[in-house]
Amino acid sequence: MNTDEAEIRALVATWLQATRSGDVDTVLGLMSDDVVFLVPGQAPMDKAAFAAAAKSQSGSQAQQFDAASEIQEIRVLGDWAYMWTRLAVGVRFADGRPGLKRAGHTLSILRRESGRWRLLRDANMLAPVAPQGAGHT
Amino acid sequence: MNTDEAEIRALVATWLQATRSGDVDTVLGLMSDDVVFLVPGQAPMDKAAFAAAAKSQSGSQAQQFDAASEIQEIRVLGDWAYMWTRLAVGVRFADGRPGLKRAGHTLSILRRESGRWRLLRDANMLAPVAPQGAGHT
Repeated sequence: MNTDEAEIRALVATWLQATRSGDVDTVLGLMSDDVVFLVPGQAPMDKAAFAAAAKSQSGSQAQQFDAASEIQEIRVLGDWAYMWTRLAVGVRFADGRPGLKRAGHTLSILRRESGRWRLLRDANMLAPVAPQGAGHT
Repeated sequence: MNTDEAEIRALVATWLQATRSGDVDTVLGLMSDDVVFLVPGQAPMDKAAFAAAAKSQSGSQAQQFDAASEIQEIRVLGDWAYMWTRLAVGVRFADGRPGLKRAGHTLSILRRESGRWRLLRDANMLAPVAPQGAGHT
């Protein structure tokens, strides 16, 4: 594994850990100011929209988030890279009940900005899965 | 617009036209042998799986496909490129009734192979829309 791939894997690990702990500012620091998030059935979301949604969620005491990622592919092309992952995201309510679980694939474009890899485009294909599902399609 | 971007736009136009006319072999010629298609709620699809699904659909006389694409962004990085589109795909039955319409975004990786651009990774985030919908999210 080369240095770039290791740095991108570290970005993913930091992203997931910060998401679990509700540290929105750390997550925002891992993305370009020009980031665009694409999901089914919704308009594209920019960094400001992501921040507003994430802060609204982290402000809720009603639920905790967890996420697990399996990186399928990372390919570095100079100061650019693309990454394909399988991602599962679960919600747990404050009383311990499990909530909706979503799983599926992501395809992302990353760019090196001032020496640091950052997320630039993100295609999120997660779909609801049954609570007993394997977690991945 | 540079030559690479023009070639990638021509690839998209050829893809849509061949899809409309049921010309599966032309569509298959526009993708790498290593292509991977990612969609919500399904396992990744390789070229053989795409071919089987497309030939099954084009063999059906019951419906016609139509598709319209608006390219949002193409960025060329040497022999690689990524592309973001808004895509709407409709189905029309042989009796003229409109069928399910799906719309949304795609994020794709393309690679130049032997001088020709080909699709290598494709993230498809299309979701059902109401028949009277604007066609895009």
